[in-house]
Amino acid sequence: MTDRARAIFDAVLPARLPDPVPFSADAPSNIALSKYWGKRDAGLNLPLNSSLSISLAEWGTTTRVGPAEDGADAVWLNGERLAPETGFARKVVAFAERFRRGQTLPLHVRTENTIPTAAGLASSASGFAALTRALAGSFGLDLAEDRLSMLARFGSGSATRSLWHGFVRWDRGAREDGTDSFARPLPEIWPDFRIAIIRVDTGPKSQSSRDGMGHTVATSPLFGQWPEQAEADCAAIEAAIKARDFLRLGALTEANALAMHATMIAARPALCYLKPESWQVLDRLWAARRDGLEAYATMDAGANVKLIFLEDSAPVIAELFPDAAIVEPFGPAAQR
Amino acid sequence: MTDRARAIFDAVLPARLPDPVPFSADAPSNIALSKYWGKRDAGLNLPLNSSLSISLAEWGTTTRVGPAEDGADAVWLNGERLAPETGFARKVVAFAERFRRGQTLPLHVRTENTIPTAAGLASSASGFAALTRALAGSFGLDLAEDRLSMLARFGSGSATRSLWHGFVRWDRGAREDGTDSFARPLPEIWPDFRIAIIRVDTGPKSQSSRDGMGHTVATSPLFGQWPEQAEADCAAIEAAIKARDFLRLGALTEANALAMHATMIAARPALCYLKPESWQVLDRLWAARRDGLEAYATMDAGANVKLIFLEDSAPVIAELFPDAAIVEPFGPAAQR
Repeated sequence: MTDRARAIFDAVLPARLPDPVPFSADAPSNIALSKYWGKRDAGLNLPLNSSLSISLAEWGTTTRVGPAEDGADAVWLNGERLAPETGFARKVVAFAERFRRGQTLPLHVRTENTIPTAAGLASSASGFAALTRALAGSFGLDLAEDRLSMLARFGSGSATRSLWHGFVRWDRGAREDGTDSFARPLPEIWPDFRIAIIRVDTGPKSQSSRDGMGHTVATSPLFGQWPEQAEADCAAIEAAIKARDFLRLGALTEANALAMHATMIAARPALCYLKPESWQVLDRLWAARRDGLEAYATMDAGANVKLIFLEDSAPVIAELFPDAAIVEPFGPAAQR
Repeated sequence: MTDRARAIFDAVLPARLPDPVPFSADAPSNIALSKYWGKRDAGLNLPLNSSLSISLAEWGTTTRVGPAEDGADAVWLNGERLAPETGFARKVVAFAERFRRGQTLPLHVRTENTIPTAAGLASSASGFAALTRALAGSFGLDLAEDRLSMLARFGSGSATRSLWHGFVRWDRGAREDGTDSFARPLPEIWPDFRIAIIRVDTGPKSQSSRDGMGHTVATSPLFGQWPEQAEADCAAIEAAIKARDFLRLGALTEANALAMHATMIAARPALCYLKPESWQVLDRLWAARRDGLEAYATMDAGANVKLIFLEDSAPVIAELFPDAAIVEPFGPAAQR
């Protein structure tokens, strides 16, 4: 942890934490409609541009944090106790340490992901968001929601947006120390909004999104125009949501995702998270759109394609992409 | 024809042309290693950036121009006399008219393309280059090569580079009237340089390259950085040719092509000349390169993929891409 990151936790948390109590929290995964791509400060995990996401209702993470009766940190993932040197266990303990800042407060952390493995979605966004809420609860901290979001940012950029259901906007912020870079939920409810996840199975990712982002910022000759465009897209997408203009929202969402992938394709060497099978899904979507379907695609740092559409397009989507998993972002799971 | 274009032809050609005599000329097709993408002046067909190509030896066009004994312009394509309203016939006559500027000098123009239809390559580059040479010869004009190249530019941008065999560089030029925007052949001969054309059959193009270029310049938020990068790539590719550094040449060529396609993918709506099958070819190439193959790809405003490599990689290329057509750009056909 850099000294600057430490200073943020020092400013937000009390100097001494009380003994932890058992506390459970959950958080949904999310998909960015306007992407986060590029950091302006790697040490503080600060983005170059604002982003806007939709949360995935029941797909997410439940995390329970409590005192370690045996006096040693331990991490469980989906019921299995992990060896301390496991990557996931080390990340969880390192994040807890940001809260403890040297105090001896051993913890047991139990994480359950409710994202179907078949969906091929990363769980770091919901994982760090749930962990942030659970740590805050376990230590009895009465933190405002924006402070929780800012702290979750240190776990993973997309975790900044995963504290809430529905549409969430992460403001890039202007301050150098990043204390104004956090997310907030938008009040808009759009009951017939739907998301389809189309899995493109191509084995493990060639490069983590963190590494891919760094490579693109450092080598892509087209990256320079991205932050300004992404900021404009984010504002336009928020306006389209407020206006309930689905066609505009869809066109902007798809264009924003393709622009992000274009910055990677222009990186040197090229970074192609999209695989031929991803382009096949896009081709099938675009052909259906010429026939009147109102659905749009977005893709993250991986080969999968996600579609957004409204409920009345669901039968056509199910026919075109029979293996797609459908999420209702404003369904019952989002209303708890 | 704009008045400014007319002024160029007036400056280069004599006020009155003599009666035409039969004259035949040929020109090779070419593939840009450093792409021409974006115009700074549509009326004068002036590019935003310089470009550099390799000509395709025996693949090209032979054009014969002679007086029309029957007193009426007529155009033949591959032995077939075209109706005057055919697109190709109209383009040929319009280009001849740039030379005649109102003089009544009816012409018969016979065009033979030697590009295999299966190659899926456009013939406008070699077509307008051969036509320019044939018109100049038919009217007995003693024009310097750079003037011929500048005039060919008015037929098609890539025709500017198709007057010669081997490597050719088209300088964007700085003058507003475009009189310094023409190509010149590079002196370098690279006998074991090879090109493979991998046809990706996807039916007719969705959009002409001229329209695609205009759409990209007008709507792609990432286009702004292209001209400067393309200019730098062009200079670096020329330097790599002079240094006989094939790996550097290959990496730059592929990166330049992908950057051009990235500008299109980011256009709004996206312009994807590359099809899923094109990405499959690239994936196969990249996998082979991880195994040591020294070959690089370039793609134009269409779905086909072209590879560049040196002769000693030819057996592996033939095994990987059995349907590829192989061109020897410095072979016997280029030495006539």
